[in-house]
Amino acid sequence: MNSILLKEVQLNGKLCDVLIEGQRFSRIAERIDVPADQRIEAGGKLAMVPPLQNMHSHLAMTLLRGYADDMELFEWLEKHIWPAEAKLTHDDVYWGTKLALLEMIHSGTVFVNDMYWHQSATLTAVEEMGLRAAIGFMYICVPGGGVLESNRRANEELRERASNHSARISLTHAPHAIYTVNEKTLLEIRAAAAEDDAVLHIHAAETVREVQQCQAEHGMSPVAYLHKLGLLGPKTVLAHCTHLSDEDIELISASGSMIAHNPVSNMKLCSGLFRFQDALQAGCRIGIGTDGCASNNNLSMLDEMKFAALSAKVQSGNPEAGRAVEVFRSASTAACQCFGIDAGEIAVGKLADAVLIRLQEPGMIGDHNMIANLVYSADSRVVDSTICDGKILMLHGEIPGEEEILEKCRAICRRIATHNA
Amino acid sequence: MNSILLKEVQLNGKLCDVLIEGQRFSRIAERIDVPADQRIEAGGKLAMVPPLQNMHSHLAMTLLRGYADDMELFEWLEKHIWPAEAKLTHDDVYWGTKLALLEMIHSGTVFVNDMYWHQSATLTAVEEMGLRAAIGFMYICVPGGGVLESNRRANEELRERASNHSARISLTHAPHAIYTVNEKTLLEIRAAAAEDDAVLHIHAAETVREVQQCQAEHGMSPVAYLHKLGLLGPKTVLAHCTHLSDEDIELISASGSMIAHNPVSNMKLCSGLFRFQDALQAGCRIGIGTDGCASNNNLSMLDEMKFAALSAKVQSGNPEAGRAVEVFRSASTAACQCFGIDAGEIAVGKLADAVLIRLQEPGMIGDHNMIANLVYSADSRVVDSTICDGKILMLHGEIPGEEEILEKCRAICRRIATHNA
Repeated sequence: MNSILLKEVQLNGKLCDVLIEGQRFSRIAERIDVPADQRIEAGGKLAMVPPLQNMHSHLAMTLLRGYADDMELFEWLEKHIWPAEAKLTHDDVYWGTKLALLEMIHSGTVFVNDMYWHQSATLTAVEEMGLRAAIGFMYICVPGGGVLESNRRANEELRERASNHSARISLTHAPHAIYTVNEKTLLEIRAAAAEDDAVLHIHAAETVREVQQCQAEHGMSPVAYLHKLGLLGPKTVLAHCTHLSDEDIELISASGSMIAHNPVSNMKLCSGLFRFQDALQAGCRIGIGTDGCASNNNLSMLDEMKFAALSAKVQSGNPEAGRAVEVFRSASTAACQCFGIDAGEIAVGKLADAVLIRLQEPGMIGDHNMIANLVYSADSRVVDSTICDGKILMLHGEIPGEEEILEKCRAICRRIATHNA
Repeated sequence: MNSILLKEVQLNGKLCDVLIEGQRFSRIAERIDVPADQRIEAGGKLAMVPPLQNMHSHLAMTLLRGYADDMELFEWLEKHIWPAEAKLTHDDVYWGTKLALLEMIHSGTVFVNDMYWHQSATLTAVEEMGLRAAIGFMYICVPGGGVLESNRRANEELRERASNHSARISLTHAPHAIYTVNEKTLLEIRAAAAEDDAVLHIHAAETVREVQQCQAEHGMSPVAYLHKLGLLGPKTVLAHCTHLSDEDIELISASGSMIAHNPVSNMKLCSGLFRFQDALQAGCRIGIGTDGCASNNNLSMLDEMKFAALSAKVQSGNPEAGRAVEVFRSASTAACQCFGIDAGEIAVGKLADAVLIRLQEPGMIGDHNMIANLVYSADSRVVDSTICDGKILMLHGEIPGEEEILEKCRAICRRIATHNA
């Protein structure tokens, strides 16, 4: 059983040593001196507890970072993003996902809830890189028909490839949205998710257009429609929720559904501003996600937290909304709640996820409030080391294999750009 | 004359060598092989041209980072920030400013337009750290009276200390705001600025309260009032401008005044959202600033650019507003325009300011659009080296003297916090 000894970690304001054995924390004490397979001299670095959790993304879109920006949603999608995505192969998604995971490891994130194509490539990338992830069986319907043949094939591949996947990985059922998946299929997906005891992950109430269309077709809001179909519940993740009525917020709260709030994407595409404070006060469970890189354009949850806080203030006109402590909680506990991961604390017996933060950095002084510093000041430069499931993914900024991933992805980007010219 | 040879810099999409002699670029060619006092192996790193310029800040407020957040502006100021600031000594401002300058160097910024107390300490810190700065003679009036005695003393000290200051530093006249400086004093400051041929730096149209008060007292908007007093012009920097009428925008544009836009501070304090796109289209000159660390809470212009772009989109409801290329221009050219600094290009004869960006980083791939990557994806982790006025301020992430500054500032923060308890 592999062991890691962390020496002199700052935890709850005190210095202590932490022992990891196998996948779990096995001892925490002022001083531990036992032989261990690996020893990290933390030298007073802060253990960010819990590490960050990205509740909604499309990982391989890292390959389209900066490909098209500053335009209206449907022009952006139809003229730029979809044509580029159509060129992405299984292999591209594998490398693009690895690039995304590199970025997440560098910015202190150990979990991601993904929704994309070629998911078996995503699964392989996550297995190899060592993070936690939820990967979705993806569903989009042919207009007036059933699920896309390409979805069916990719889902079958995922099912096959996942037969003996690591416990770090969950599979979700991920119908794209109510306007791309018909009612019959949504009900089938609900049944499949129930059978698998899996999380259901769907874009919901993202744009005014979606809300208006749902009102016109079903005479109710997207959230009410999902409720009517029985799709809300504690194992449902609703991505975006930028347009919620008071009734929608009540339905989400009562059902225990998880909102995955994506402030940067919503602001960048002018989708709207999520009612963070209203949802929080109504008792909704809220996680935070980066969305894909084409609409962000990075995967840093450290950045995303600041946008979440400021978006909450702007939306409500209240500077007390989106408090740092609430935003940090949203950004770091949602996956454990929703996916039942036995992590999120540095405590004996818990799964060993840990991120070490350099405090000897200009952006971390004044040091009056560490949570405020993480939410409002920190960027990925302060992240020193990342541990997930008892394995060191990054040590003092070094991730094994990083250079190869960057080179492969650079080559893929050149190919995409060339085809485009 | 000191010389620096930069080998293999990426400039306008090509690799080249760049020679700096004294304060200026002296040669740019595909290959230069001459002996130089210092040689930087850039290895294909990108020259960010121009480097970033912070058009409005209160540097030493780094010491109050995270001291008080998530509250209403006047509660925040009166109960927390002002009492803490009252404890800051000349020496604290010196160290706090050095901390701020460290953070700026790490995030690729070579200029800052500052407004704070104990300005002679600010000047010493800037002289020693090697950046460019504008430092203000500061003016706040006693209610119903003249300029604060503490302002007068600090301004005299600045005048004395500045008698032989470096050409990297400009002095400005910085009346705090129209609601803290009376009309007679504003007119005197205008005359003093004209006599010194100096920039005038003032907070303007930051809050609804300021606008309403100005309407009540003077029957016009803050910008119209400043215009009436003759305070607008190409040597005027108006910080914030979150509340502008169409007429205000026309006055600013016609006068050539520079707006210093501070998106994070305006969002965090719920001051309002600056009409970036309207002002741009009206031909206003726009720079970007971070404001002080207590309302941000960092000094990264890389972060600030993303907020500027997204704030413009949210304010206008138009995803085409705040385009990356416009935001980058605002963030990197305003100081050269406004302060007549002969920098901002890597060209023979120009003052040698340069920031080297690591492209071999996950957040810089996809590499479809470097400006979009700098605005929307980059954080300070990608900044490798910073050169200002022909001197290397940071080489491969290392800044001489950094540890001492961090330790000194940590001690000051402990003192402030202890007094508070």
